[in-house]
Amino acid sequence: MDRMTISVAVSGASGYAGGEVLRLLAHHPNTTIGAITAHSNAGQRLGDLQPHLRALADRVLVDTTVENLAGHDVVFLALPHGTSAEIAAQLPADTLVIDAGADHRLESSAAWEKFYGSAHAGTWPYGLPELPGQREKLRGAKRIAVPGCYPTSAQLALVPGFAAGLLEPHDVVIVSASGTSGAGKSAKTHLLGSEVMGGMSPYGVGGAHRHTPEMEQGFSNAAGEPVSVSFTPTLAPMSRGILTTATARVRPGVGAAALRAAWEQAYADEPFVHVLPAGHWPHTKHVVASNHATLQLAFDEHAGRVIVTCVIDNLTKGTAGGAVQSMNIALGLPETAGLDIEGVAP
Amino acid sequence: MDRMTISVAVSGASGYAGGEVLRLLAHHPNTTIGAITAHSNAGQRLGDLQPHLRALADRVLVDTTVENLAGHDVVFLALPHGTSAEIAAQLPADTLVIDAGADHRLESSAAWEKFYGSAHAGTWPYGLPELPGQREKLRGAKRIAVPGCYPTSAQLALVPGFAAGLLEPHDVVIVSASGTSGAGKSAKTHLLGSEVMGGMSPYGVGGAHRHTPEMEQGFSNAAGEPVSVSFTPTLAPMSRGILTTATARVRPGVGAAALRAAWEQAYADEPFVHVLPAGHWPHTKHVVASNHATLQLAFDEHAGRVIVTCVIDNLTKGTAGGAVQSMNIALGLPETAGLDIEGVAP
Amino acid sequence: MDRMTISVAVSGASGYAGGEVLRLLAHHPNTTIGAITAHSNAGQRLGDLQPHLRALADRVLVDTTVENLAGHDVVFLALPHGTSAEIAAQLPADTLVIDAGADHRLESSAAWEKFYGSAHAGTWPYGLPELPGQREKLRGAKRIAVPGCYPTSAQLALVPGFAAGLLEPHDVVIVSASGTSGAGKSAKTHLLGSEVMGGMSPYGVGGAHRHTPEMEQGFSNAAGEPVSVSFTPTLAPMSRGILTTATARVRPGVGAAALRAAWEQAYADEPFVHVLPAGHWPHTKHVVASNHATLQLAFDEHAGRVIVTCVIDNLTKGTAGGAVQSMNIALGLPETAGLDIEGVAP
Amino acid sequence: MDRMTISVAVSGASGYAGGEVLRLLAHHPNTTIGAITAHSNAGQRLGDLQPHLRALADRVLVDTTVENLAGHDVVFLALPHGTSAEIAAQLPADTLVIDAGADHRLESSAAWEKFYGSAHAGTWPYGLPELPGQREKLRGAKRIAVPGCYPTSAQLALVPGFAAGLLEPHDVVIVSASGTSGAGKSAKTHLLGSEVMGGMSPYGVGGAHRHTPEMEQGFSNAAGEPVSVSFTPTLAPMSRGILTTATARVRPGVGAAALRAAWEQAYADEPFVHVLPAGHWPHTKHVVASNHATLQLAFDEHAGRVIVTCVIDNLTKGTAGGAVQSMNIALGLPETAGLDIEGVAP
Repeated sequence: MDRMTISVAVSGASGYAGGEVLRLLAHHPNTTIGAITAHSNAGQRLGDLQPHLRALADRVLVDTTVENLAGHDVVFLALPHGTSAEIAAQLPADTLVIDAGADHRLESSAAWEKFYGSAHAGTWPYGLPELPGQREKLRGAKRIAVPGCYPTSAQLALVPGFAAGLLEPHDVVIVSASGTSGAGKSAKTHLLGSEVMGGMSPYGVGGAHRHTPEMEQGFSNAAGEPVSVSFTPTLAPMSRGILTTATARVRPGVGAAALRAAWEQAYADEPFVHVLPAGHWPHTKHVVASNHATLQLAFDEHAGRVIVTCVIDNLTKGTAGGAVQSMNIALGLPETAGLDIEGVAP
Repeated sequence: MDRMTISVAVSGASGYAGGEVLRLLAHHPNTTIGAITAHSNAGQRLGDLQPHLRALADRVLVDTTVENLAGHDVVFLALPHGTSAEIAAQLPADTLVIDAGADHRLESSAAWEKFYGSAHAGTWPYGLPELPGQREKLRGAKRIAVPGCYPTSAQLALVPGFAAGLLEPHDVVIVSASGTSGAGKSAKTHLLGSEVMGGMSPYGVGGAHRHTPEMEQGFSNAAGEPVSVSFTPTLAPMSRGILTTATARVRPGVGAAALRAAWEQAYADEPFVHVLPAGHWPHTKHVVASNHATLQLAFDEHAGRVIVTCVIDNLTKGTAGGAVQSMNIALGLPETAGLDIEGVAP
Repeated sequence: MDRMTISVAVSGASGYAGGEVLRLLAHHPNTTIGAITAHSNAGQRLGDLQPHLRALADRVLVDTTVENLAGHDVVFLALPHGTSAEIAAQLPADTLVIDAGADHRLESSAAWEKFYGSAHAGTWPYGLPELPGQREKLRGAKRIAVPGCYPTSAQLALVPGFAAGLLEPHDVVIVSASGTSGAGKSAKTHLLGSEVMGGMSPYGVGGAHRHTPEMEQGFSNAAGEPVSVSFTPTLAPMSRGILTTATARVRPGVGAAALRAAWEQAYADEPFVHVLPAGHWPHTKHVVASNHATLQLAFDEHAGRVIVTCVIDNLTKGTAGGAVQSMNIALGLPETAGLDIEGVAP
Repeated sequence: MDRMTISVAVSGASGYAGGEVLRLLAHHPNTTIGAITAHSNAGQRLGDLQPHLRALADRVLVDTTVENLAGHDVVFLALPHGTSAEIAAQLPADTLVIDAGADHRLESSAAWEKFYGSAHAGTWPYGLPELPGQREKLRGAKRIAVPGCYPTSAQLALVPGFAAGLLEPHDVVIVSASGTSGAGKSAKTHLLGSEVMGGMSPYGVGGAHRHTPEMEQGFSNAAGEPVSVSFTPTLAPMSRGILTTATARVRPGVGAAALRAAWEQAYADEPFVHVLPAGHWPHTKHVVASNHATLQLAFDEHAGRVIVTCVIDNLTKGTAGGAVQSMNIALGLPETAGLDIEGVAP
């Protein structure tokens, strides 16, 4: 049989997430790119908006409408939070819809309403196949919610410990440094190069960040009990990448060997998540532009805590790569199809 | 009376710390710069080693010897850790010796020996005047140990809470992002621009960092009970600056207002430490090249923790600026002499 | 006699140029800062707009009106090009008005109209005292046009050769790399950190850049004949700094020694412009935040051309520092007053 | 027939050029990677030296010897300049040897000896297939000299004009800004992140740069007459990328339309070189990690010069990508095999 070919539509193509989906799909062995849509930029050449995508430079963007998106095997939604649910509801039930926005990530309607202030659109299968049992839930799925970039790194960092019952559910502290592309492509003064180059700053400190309930959802599901998280995001002077430092109190009697074993076992067969050998530290540059996550853990016996550092590319494994990986699983393609690319360093 | 004039010698002048001491002293209204010393770079023009110091470009470095350093009112030691004690011991007792290295920071000989593996040289008055009661201990001092850059930011972040009895002594978590100048000027592959630009990485994770006992010393002294800290340093793609995110469990019954009051009160009269108005976040660029620290705090009620973010310039307030500030206090000069400079932004 | 004290008003204080003027004046020994004005940001605290200016954090901005600006000894205008002339015309004749904008730089009304498309407001004494004979013209002046940042670096690079008659007036090629602060603080997508970090691009290529006639004016005045320039500006991933590479055909018979002698002689007594020793290259970091310019020259005998590289901080020597230096000269103050600051490196 | 499979050995695998060759070959559809060799790093895991190359992490480096390199269909030499000739001479004549070093680039033995100070090893077919007639010379070749990164960008920028007889052979001026990876992975103080981040500097100014004769060779061959170049390389604060600004005097009577036509025609069928639409500027970020070059040209009628700006990734099109492209041509593979990858932006 010939190679399976899947038609794909990509919305939000003028933004960073949509551009990254296109970068990956442009050379995916099983996809052909159909409609490429945008809102205010409809009618323009992709080459004028995403000049790095040479292979698609002459494609012209069309409006983000149900009409333009329907009729494809797969539809990627890379739209502002709160706007994808309406469009998704109108797409055929047998179309695979992959939402890179937040609308369908949370299981708790109460949490959604608290953090987003609108009615909850419902919960879709969660596109982080490395969670325990999650890969099975994605096979054959027709709706997939792509995790947020911070929650991807945080859950990869700590879920193995919660799933193995090694960590206390309180005093979990997560501090992440993100590249500026995570803040999007809208022109804002505080995101100007002049403002961000050469400096670091926190933002959204104190429990208010919308990604906190998503992290707690993943940890609580793994732990089988409610887990609470203190999360602080910071902005780093780089375009791409997230470095997450996640620490949690270790249960009494748990030592360094048991910790390492739990993480290594959890990711032993994962194609994209790698526990580094002792003495090696993850670096965001090592995974930039790839779908890989690398992590290292240390047991701080003195403080009774495990410290896990995890790096991803926020746009790849943290958004578009995770989306393509989930698509592959849902459609029964090899999980690494279109994602067998190395990080770009130096 | 004429303006008081103090002769100063600076050792380690070819490194980043020594260069920063010279940058500040070059325009200090009360100092004249005497011997400028180095080890392997002795004999060279300062202009060839620190080309930004135009005012001192034609000065020639001499060897770092007791002979060259003695005979000044003040001697700054910016030498590798473990090497300053021997020289300091030979300098006259009435010379003000300010050691930017670690040798005399720790009060506990056991902690020194554990982390540095050599005999402890003794404890000097600690050059962080913003600590409770510390300013008094520096007046008239003849030996001053300049704090480490990470401990400066960490102690500024959390000491007010410990001193006011608002924080639990366990599960203190500190994650800092530092500019690369903190790693020094020695040529190492992993510090090459090609390696660090555009990426972030952790290092020394898991309790091993030598700055941890210094932080715990400051917190324990303030709290009146032993405090344990989990500290993770990370390297950010910027030359200067530290962003420290410090979080601690809040004692039962303590709320947001009491927390903010404690910090604001602690720093109300400080010339260099500033609690930002609510809604404003500190940014390392706002303090670069200045002796200022700015911080913000938030009460994460959900997690029961306070989160304090603090920024300094690691070379200024974190090293050379703190050293000059301490010198001013020790000598009875205005505390801000030579330090009334703004941050350089954008 | 007491120290002379001059009252100063600064307009455009929420932008990069206005902020830099304030950074320098905050510690100028002879000035007191009066009105600080802005357009849309009037009514806000300076600390909210320029958080690095701690010394002025609580000052509140007022509207940029003639009423608010009048009544000071000196008024700095840091306004959009084309808007300063109208305000300047209404300020008292005995007020020293220093315009950081372009309105009064060009001597040729035809050139102004061609490049700016409006009526020419007239020509003011040009605030680049290092030009031959220019310092004299600034003494006692009441109106000063601050040079553009690119023309400052370009004229410092090549004027000594033109003034000495060593260079041909054609095939002058100038390529400059500028930090992004030169493009201002308005939020634009192509200036986002995500877009500029890690990359370089040209812009305005092909003779269209408005700074070209200003360069040609300076060169032609020095050469005593019309000089034509090909100028290409590029945007570099840094906040501050300009590196200008300027090359020109050398007249027959002129050799390396004559070239070096001309430049060294031109700047021998300049406090802010320095020809580096052979073998040393200028680096923008060495002059960042200072009013210094450093340069190096080489005779490419093979190509028959001199290559001069010159670095400045675009906001300091290229704008606000040059403005303060000119103010000092105009008022009879020491030329370096308030500018005796070193570059900030690393 | 099955897909053609070619065995490849890569030397110098611990450096930046060798690492980039491996990044591209790891997913080339027609190659299998045999020996991976290094000098002082032999015996180590590739994952410890090039952590971004996850697909090859467990491969162990062997010594760079003729024995280890022989027996492959293709051998890539990514060795220090002046060291490849000796090894190449001992490899079988029917092995395709691709030298990323300088040893075999120059046609003139005199030029080699002047700039490198050793005996010339001879001239190999030059791996820049976009030069007129060059693609044919690479088909079936068994020895290929990969161009330098600066000369790649410079020749792509100006050769169309010389080949079409539109440019004068004198007063060609080229200024390039390169990312720091072009300076290699050896630890040197002036290449530390602390030194390079946030600043720009020139180096090797005045005709001394070894890449000048290589540029002149390409221009002279295209023009049919000797062309002389003034070349200034500068170091930009980014890991990868070259922006070259190349300007030349236009012959009398040549106008903008003829210029544009010449460049567009020259690259009309090129898969990797693209003349941008008018009004668009090349940006190094748009080609990073890809084998593409983009360029724009402008006719500065006022100065009588054409200005061409061209961007490449110095490690990809400038080194490893150009090497793979040449390999593809030499072996009769599709020219874009293994190179159909997009730039990574933002």
